Amino acid sequence: MHRGVFITFEGIDGSGKSTHLRLLASELRLRGYNLVTTREPGGTPLGARLRDLLLRGEEQVDPLAELLLYAADRAQHVRTLVRPALETGHIVLSDRYADATVAYQGAGRGFPSDLIADIVRIGTDGLMPDLTLVFDVSVAVAHARMRKRNGIEKEEDRFEREEVEFHTRVRDAYRQLAAQEPTRVRLIDASGSIEETHARVIEIVLPFLEENAAGEKAARSV
Amino acid sequence: MHRGVFITFEGIDGSGKSTHLRLLASELRLRGYNLVTTREPGGTPLGARLRDLLLRGEEQVDPLAELLLYAADRAQHVRTLVRPALETGHIVLSDRYADATVAYQGAGRGFPSDLIADIVRIGTDGLMPDLTLVFDVSVAVAHARMRKRNGIEKEEDRFEREEVEFHTRVRDAYRQLAAQEPTRVRLIDASGSIEETHARVIEIVLPFLEENAAGEKAARSV
Ligand SMILES: Nc1ncnc2c1ncn2[C@@H]1O[C@H](COP(=O)(O)OP(=O)(O)O)[C@@H](O)[C@H]1O
Ligand SMILES: Nc1ncnc2c1ncn2[C@@H]1O[C@H](COP(=O)(O)OP(=O)(O)O)[C@@H](O)[C@H]1O
Ligand SMILES: [Mg+2]
Ligand SMILES: [Mg+2]
Repeated sequence: MHRGVFITFEGIDGSGKSTHLRLLASELRLRGYNLVTTREPGGTPLGARLRDLLLRGEEQVDPLAELLLYAADRAQHVRTLVRPALETGHIVLSDRYADATVAYQGAGRGFPSDLIADIVRIGTDGLMPDLTLVFDVSVAVAHARMRKRNGIEKEEDRFEREEVEFHTRVRDAYRQLAAQEPTRVRLIDASGSIEETHARVIEIVLPFLEENAAGEKAARSV
Repeated sequence: MHRGVFITFEGIDGSGKSTHLRLLASELRLRGYNLVTTREPGGTPLGARLRDLLLRGEEQVDPLAELLLYAADRAQHVRTLVRPALETGHIVLSDRYADATVAYQGAGRGFPSDLIADIVRIGTDGLMPDLTLVFDVSVAVAHARMRKRNGIEKEEDRFEREEVEFHTRVRDAYRQLAAQEPTRVRLIDASGSIEETHARVIEIVLPFLEENAAGEKAARSV
């Protein structure tokens, strides 16, 4: 049982999660909400070490070990940061959470859905988000944004066909999650300008908080 | 399906696992067996980093995160080292494996047995040992041996009651595993001298290998 509100940001790399988390956080702070912003992997000190193992790529990581490391990062995150923040009435905004496992390890890497469901259940310790925003944009647009973010010239960074296919499966999985759980998971067209997308986020989040951040919220812990 | 033989060494700290793994390995090498010796956690380069996180204790690790980190270490170990070695006909001796999760995280830390069963199934990728040796000794004797190993004076190192109870639960869980799966899991009285215990190990392992290391072995992968 918790009194806060847990909102997660999902979507492929370059879809705008971090940008829109930042913009929403400023907006909510101005309005006086108690906020915690965090991310996966790497939201805790242990998680920062795991993020390094997972994303720096110095050690070869087997895909099943990778799945379990993300789950370990999540367990630490939920039990030492997210749930305590929710229990003290905070709004928690997380850059990625459980749906990323379904999209990346399930659809992307092809692990069977019952294995993914087991790992999500275990790693979240049963805590699902109250609201999930999926930033939806084509793989080509997301890739162009990342190239620009990293200051890379077009010809230096060819996107391999295998990678395009991988990210297309991930995007499709996020769209499917939004179709399956339309109340919790809201698909946001993120192909327009930052301002346009931010307006869409605000349109969804403000009414949601007015309804749910009153301290009377029913428990969402399952 | 594999052609090798997978033997794991289990028991509480100070029960003699590492000592008897070393002695058995020398014996088997003299007899011409192709051997790989390894351990958990830490049998792979990734595992060495995880072992450091788990045992050095610089970061606070939540018990659920710990359970998942051990499983990640195991997945990497099985898929990059143990199974390839078995498939090329090696005898693999591992200092701890899946039963340690049942004993330490299940009985020791008190995680529910269905959660433990899920994590064992996932982390082992379905590979269970062909033979498991449990070194059985009282918590008091094991503790005295460790104190001697570490060169610690008696009065410097008081064993807290909570710790005694924890290790007693772990020992009892190993004994229970041996009772439940008497064909795979062999309980070895490890309270006598190193020579006496080594003789017991040899008595079990040599006939087992004569029967099972002929290259005709049925698959044990489940
Ligand atoms: N709607 C947008 N139009 C143009 N550029 C955008 C838009 N949204 C984000 N960006 C830019 O795209 C890049 C990737 O966005 P980011 O928020 O880092 O995505 P993510 O966190 O999902 O990887 C950043 O440089 C950001 O400024
Ligand atoms: N049967 C025995 N009698 C006396 N000392 C022993 C015996 N077996 C092991 N030892 C010693 O006890 C200590 C712990 O043994 P070790 O093999 O490191 O246990 P583990 O690997 O199970 O923690 C070592 O110093 C070892 O030499
Ligand atoms: Mg980002
Ligand atoms: Mg040892």
